[in-house]
Amino acid sequence: MEQNAAPLSCLAGIRVLDLTQFEAGPSCTEALAWLGAEVVKVENPKTGEPGRSAFAHGPGRPDSFYFFEFDANKKSVTIDLKSEQGLSLVKEMAKRADVMIENMAPGTIERLGLGYGVIRSLNPGIVYAQVKGFGEGSPYEKNLAFDMIAQACGGTMSITGEPDRPPVKPGPSLADTGTGMLMAISILGALYERRASGRGRRLEVAMQDAMLHYIRIAFQHQAVTGEAAKRNGAGTAANTPPPCGIYPCAPGGANDYVYIFARQIDHWHRLLKAIGREELLGDPRFETVEARREHRAEVDRMITEWTGRRDKYEAMRAIGAAGVPAGAVLDTMELMNEPSFERRGILQVVDHPSGPYKMPAWPVRFDGLPPRLAPAPLLGQHNAEVFASWLGMSAADVEALRGKGTI
Amino acid sequence: MEQNAAPLSCLAGIRVLDLTQFEAGPSCTEALAWLGAEVVKVENPKTGEPGRSAFAHGPGRPDSFYFFEFDANKKSVTIDLKSEQGLSLVKEMAKRADVMIENMAPGTIERLGLGYGVIRSLNPGIVYAQVKGFGEGSPYEKNLAFDMIAQACGGTMSITGEPDRPPVKPGPSLADTGTGMLMAISILGALYERRASGRGRRLEVAMQDAMLHYIRIAFQHQAVTGEAAKRNGAGTAANTPPPCGIYPCAPGGANDYVYIFARQIDHWHRLLKAIGREELLGDPRFETVEARREHRAEVDRMITEWTGRRDKYEAMRAIGAAGVPAGAVLDTMELMNEPSFERRGILQVVDHPSGPYKMPAWPVRFDGLPPRLAPAPLLGQHNAEVFASWLGMSAADVEALRGKGTI
Repeated sequence: MEQNAAPLSCLAGIRVLDLTQFEAGPSCTEALAWLGAEVVKVENPKTGEPGRSAFAHGPGRPDSFYFFEFDANKKSVTIDLKSEQGLSLVKEMAKRADVMIENMAPGTIERLGLGYGVIRSLNPGIVYAQVKGFGEGSPYEKNLAFDMIAQACGGTMSITGEPDRPPVKPGPSLADTGTGMLMAISILGALYERRASGRGRRLEVAMQDAMLHYIRIAFQHQAVTGEAAKRNGAGTAANTPPPCGIYPCAPGGANDYVYIFARQIDHWHRLLKAIGREELLGDPRFETVEARREHRAEVDRMITEWTGRRDKYEAMRAIGAAGVPAGAVLDTMELMNEPSFERRGILQVVDHPSGPYKMPAWPVRFDGLPPRLAPAPLLGQHNAEVFASWLGMSAADVEALRGKGTI
Repeated sequence: MEQNAAPLSCLAGIRVLDLTQFEAGPSCTEALAWLGAEVVKVENPKTGEPGRSAFAHGPGRPDSFYFFEFDANKKSVTIDLKSEQGLSLVKEMAKRADVMIENMAPGTIERLGLGYGVIRSLNPGIVYAQVKGFGEGSPYEKNLAFDMIAQACGGTMSITGEPDRPPVKPGPSLADTGTGMLMAISILGALYERRASGRGRRLEVAMQDAMLHYIRIAFQHQAVTGEAAKRNGAGTAANTPPPCGIYPCAPGGANDYVYIFARQIDHWHRLLKAIGREELLGDPRFETVEARREHRAEVDRMITEWTGRRDKYEAMRAIGAAGVPAGAVLDTMELMNEPSFERRGILQVVDHPSGPYKMPAWPVRFDGLPPRLAPAPLLGQHNAEVFASWLGMSAADVEALRGKGTI
């Protein structure tokens, strides 16, 4: 089989001490791992991080697919943070780390005695990163948050859903992975600076705050109308003129739709030709965006007549080939089974002790290939290796810690 | 007024030659600008990049708020890419750039003679980045795409909306800004590597492919159930047990809802106390996630009775203070007018020749403060400055180019 991925070593030599859990933190450190950093997860010796078990497992799997997805290419060590010796171990590792990152509940890391002041005194050059639900200085800074809470408070829900119906949550876990990506960028900026300056940095991001970054299109609409952006169904937060939305296709299943967007006049003309309505070229009812807004029902009807007799792939192919932006609504199964994703390394099959699985990889290609996935670690899989290479421990040292339950 | 932001110079000295337009590319280069890179937009001398004018302007504004949002902290030069001399100018700039990036329609940059092969021969150390709708090797690689098309084809729409109703588009422009963030991470990884190796890189990302990165929570659900992830309204793609969703609040406006998520048993118990239903503590109808799924209607009813008599802020405060994840559904106007965002520099007021405006800033704090915003450039504002500092041109040289219409 042709190679569909290659290991990356952009961040070779960078050590990340990873105290994160679930998704917002792990998605961030996983990006660093994919770029070649050595990311070491610190996990509870008994249970591991909650992401291993809070989601259902597949048959015969020691951990959830969720954990597989967000913790690929990382190493795992176990350390009991409730023991003095465990905390000492973390501090010793922090002295040798380039990056330390956590996303525990507000105040927890400080109560553990691992707050920025302590860690900085041990390692002034460290990049110390924290992901929280709400920002310091927010009225809700002490509140717990998960993805859905930050999406409610961050505006993404208010602009998602159908007009005149309640808001819905965007399906993507944007407050988790979306926030993780902003932190990854910031860590990389700080690492770049540090390479020359030796300077450490404290980085903090709140999931609520991060959502504003992703709804700037809605703020555009508000700036012009003077009103809060509304929900527009399959349309856009900027209330783009028709055709801009989904049109039903055969055979009428839950996701049998094709998205068509033809705002530009040349796109509109190409669309008319593609659906066999050349007689409407130049018709003043449809020649401007204002005219098409006024005749929205007719626009939608003529397109639906055409799409309704085709399946979504055929509709996408024909309209796309005509030079009009068009896309079938694909579901997760259709995506997972699309062979071109695996051929291109966007989905990769990972070998794991519990058997192979297929999952999404980092989608950016470096010189033609995305970074190669390695399996998520088993709990404590890298204890001996990491404690030896980071802290110079012997096998006997590690065994002694294990005997005491510290690791 | 207390300082709410500070300039960042993590990427000081990095030169970005920016041929991007609209959002996917500009959001990426803007992140680099916020980290301190010198980002120079190359724009059409007559019209500027289409993002300046494709969206409505506010009164008295030379450019759209959209352009303000996605092009802050950048410089603008004008170059006519249809002229030989203009293309030569871009190549001279590429020789001196650390990063070159474009997101034109498929094949356009190569037709201009500015493809990777050409640029690499001029500057082997350059990081050359491209954002497209579909990936090379995809059946749709030549198709046009915008945010909504990639969201349709990338799975985000299939998991967003109400059960038994058509898909809706997530309001956030995830295929644009979400893809831009993945490219920013990749560019920073390549720059970090290059600082030691001198090695250039070709980076490519497709908006469709990038969407898979943001819907991994849905692939978790599919891995367990063996079925495509469904739409769950305000619930999650992982079909989280109740209570997990929005509850209506007084006075009943379009966004008068509070999100409540209480999966963990201790959160459920705290919630019962917060809404005055202590008598249900330990009631077997609600003590496990399976039991609450079975009694979903009763769970929702008892919460709605309580939330319906309060406004969303009060509901969020009371339930959040009880230690239960909760969040009011906030709209874009409520966010823009929330004073704590401006105090914390998450929203910043920017001075612009056409008057001040307020917009979202990079939400990650560096040593306590987010990077300070600078206004988006006027068209060609930095011609003299950039052509002098990058290419050593005199004022007379620049004037001559202007006279010929090259810039």
